[in-house]
Amino acid sequence: MTEGKPDWYPMWEEIGIDIQKHDQLLAVLPTIYKEIYIDPQKNRPKAMSFWDFVVGDIHGIRISELKEAKDQGKKIVGTFCLYVPDEILFALDCIGIGLCGGTNFSNYASDELLPANTCALIKSALGFGIGNICPYFAMADLLIGETTCDGKKKAWEVLEKYKPMYVMETPQCKTREQARELFIAELKALIIRLEELTNKKLTAEKLKASMEKIAKKHELMAKVYELRKNDPVPISGKDALLMSQVAFYDDPDREIQMISKLVDELEQRVKEGVGVAKKGSKRIIVSGTPMAVPNWKIHHLVEREDVVIVGEETCTGTRYFQSRFDKIEGNTIDKLVEIIADRYLGINCACFTPNDARLEDIKQLVKTYNADGVILYTLSFCQPYEFEAINYRKELKELGIPVINITTDYSSEDNSQLKTRIDAFLEMLK
Amino acid sequence: MTEGKPDWYPMWEEIGIDIQKHDQLLAVLPTIYKEIYIDPQKNRPKAMSFWDFVVGDIHGIRISELKEAKDQGKKIVGTFCLYVPDEILFALDCIGIGLCGGTNFSNYASDELLPANTCALIKSALGFGIGNICPYFAMADLLIGETTCDGKKKAWEVLEKYKPMYVMETPQCKTREQARELFIAELKALIIRLEELTNKKLTAEKLKASMEKIAKKHELMAKVYELRKNDPVPISGKDALLMSQVAFYDDPDREIQMISKLVDELEQRVKEGVGVAKKGSKRIIVSGTPMAVPNWKIHHLVEREDVVIVGEETCTGTRYFQSRFDKIEGNTIDKLVEIIADRYLGINCACFTPNDARLEDIKQLVKTYNADGVILYTLSFCQPYEFEAINYRKELKELGIPVINITTDYSSEDNSQLKTRIDAFLEMLK
Repeated sequence: MTEGKPDWYPMWEEIGIDIQKHDQLLAVLPTIYKEIYIDPQKNRPKAMSFWDFVVGDIHGIRISELKEAKDQGKKIVGTFCLYVPDEILFALDCIGIGLCGGTNFSNYASDELLPANTCALIKSALGFGIGNICPYFAMADLLIGETTCDGKKKAWEVLEKYKPMYVMETPQCKTREQARELFIAELKALIIRLEELTNKKLTAEKLKASMEKIAKKHELMAKVYELRKNDPVPISGKDALLMSQVAFYDDPDREIQMISKLVDELEQRVKEGVGVAKKGSKRIIVSGTPMAVPNWKIHHLVEREDVVIVGEETCTGTRYFQSRFDKIEGNTIDKLVEIIADRYLGINCACFTPNDARLEDIKQLVKTYNADGVILYTLSFCQPYEFEAINYRKELKELGIPVINITTDYSSEDNSQLKTRIDAFLEMLK
Repeated sequence: MTEGKPDWYPMWEEIGIDIQKHDQLLAVLPTIYKEIYIDPQKNRPKAMSFWDFVVGDIHGIRISELKEAKDQGKKIVGTFCLYVPDEILFALDCIGIGLCGGTNFSNYASDELLPANTCALIKSALGFGIGNICPYFAMADLLIGETTCDGKKKAWEVLEKYKPMYVMETPQCKTREQARELFIAELKALIIRLEELTNKKLTAEKLKASMEKIAKKHELMAKVYELRKNDPVPISGKDALLMSQVAFYDDPDREIQMISKLVDELEQRVKEGVGVAKKGSKRIIVSGTPMAVPNWKIHHLVEREDVVIVGEETCTGTRYFQSRFDKIEGNTIDKLVEIIADRYLGINCACFTPNDARLEDIKQLVKTYNADGVILYTLSFCQPYEFEAINYRKELKELGIPVINITTDYSSEDNSQLKTRIDAFLEMLK
């Protein structure tokens, strides 16, 4: 993986990476990327070369950027959930980095510290951090957790022994006024914590500018999704997913630039009727738990010559960008924080009760993306999404929408079993 | 089970019980009670005959009382967690009934509706309700859930299809002022919901009287626990556990009367040096998830001629009564609700983060009860307690306190394996 790239070893050593283990990881990643990600795809948008570059140098250039930013006094803040507001982080000159893990490579470092019945994402993320094999984790000055699920809520108590940690309470019954008040108070407490970290004072101007930037990024991501409504679809599910995955840790300005280019190319493709699969291919919506890099398991099992994933109702999909500011009308921090709170409380995650709006979101996606079927995807031991998957399956079936529930983890042990089930499901759609 | 008891069948039929299934349950319960509960015990306090009677007629006389109360206009409110405040329920002439399930007998009715990775308590409780085999459930006019764990939070979305359901949000980071404010707002919202249900208006006088009554019950339960500090211990862990289990659904006035009698008898025993096990027996603290009737699994495996459980740091143990009102100084509903909130926020459940105070509680119990070892007991798939058990095990070991972690469910399949582990642990204490 070193052809043409700088020698990053001195940097990795300086930040305390376990070089031997990290080498093992870097040794397998290109093979996985080639076999699972690249080879099965045809006719990808040219603009995706940026994301290929990002994956190809995943622990290199971005880390060197973060290091430079740190040297200039910026703070790196690691997060594990989209409810930790980038708007506030970036307004205080922090750089927010999503630290969710997408491979079980790192589990060896967290296995003894966590219950066996912990979801793959938490095991992976903690393993990367505690095992010192994730340079992003190593760069972080502060980690910010939240209380969106039992597993993460209690995982912070493990993680805080290794890194400075702050927990933001996210409410449980989000439609109530008192929950909104709690969330606003928590956002304000977070601002205070970040002001302490950065030794800076938040201003309404900086917050508003940050909100506008993040909104711009989300708007562009939504445009990519909009373009997936076309048939033939101009971009694969895999490529759209990778765009989202990288958006969690790349520089927002560069993301805006690169996603703009991608949007331009996809618009051109649509005009010309160019797609990644032939017109009339079967169109699938995946809905459920997030898929962190390099988790492309379901997309790899589903997408094929005549089957494409056209939308993801996940944290690494529509939930990341769908709830946006209508308008940013406010010139005080108090007012802007309220607007931020309302944006986040507009996201329909299974961590809330009730969460009927998520089912409406899925139905809406099926309709507007003209989907042929839905895969309800859940990481094992993620109780909130497991419960909703059981319920939603029934509801979607009653509406005559083909649906399959898949509960899995990051291992490849169930691949052949999953392939059989998915093949049967797709066959049924024909 | 019908000798000398009224014929309850007409009542059960009237409230919609599945008589056939219910008969199967009643057919096995006396055998379980005799073999697991009664036969292994020696020299029990005479006052326990009340609790034997309660178990012997578990779905009979208390149900007939509830029915009579309903006929007089009272409302029956089912709960699943000690955070739903009895003080408020009883002040509004509701009768609070704990509906947690303690046997997997009922799982057949909930299995298809819940993820496989759901804890035994939730599976059991929902099964009893949905399968119409629990008369308490059938009597309930309203169920009140809370957001203490992911499993229950999402289970309410299943349950609400069968029964009127209200969910009270419990905060996640309880030591923060905004969490306290949320909880107070939620208690007030609960009052409004119960006022609607009962068509009554809460008064400060009634609330204060109710608080005093519940406090009295808790004070007496604490006295029973205090007496367990003696050696020989005057009451078995099983009997103390049963007292707690029944306190969740019996009439508080009768509980006060019966526990008073028990306290008197135990005090007499202590004076006379009478115990349920010989002086010098090994003394065990059990700490972890609640044990609902008829879950006596761990107590049955642990207690023997020279080993007694002297304290339970569980919801069916110290967490039920340990956090009490210092004094009830307030004459407005607002002030009284604050006092109630502070009492509940003083309970150290693993649903909160951080929850270091629970470890302090356990250490304190070990010290004051002169315990020889700790069993960290967790129901499988209960992530909050699983996480804490892993962490606490390390902490207790470092202090030189013998400790064993047991993760299990309601089945008897792992009994012999657990027995081997527990025997080895107890052997080590000698």
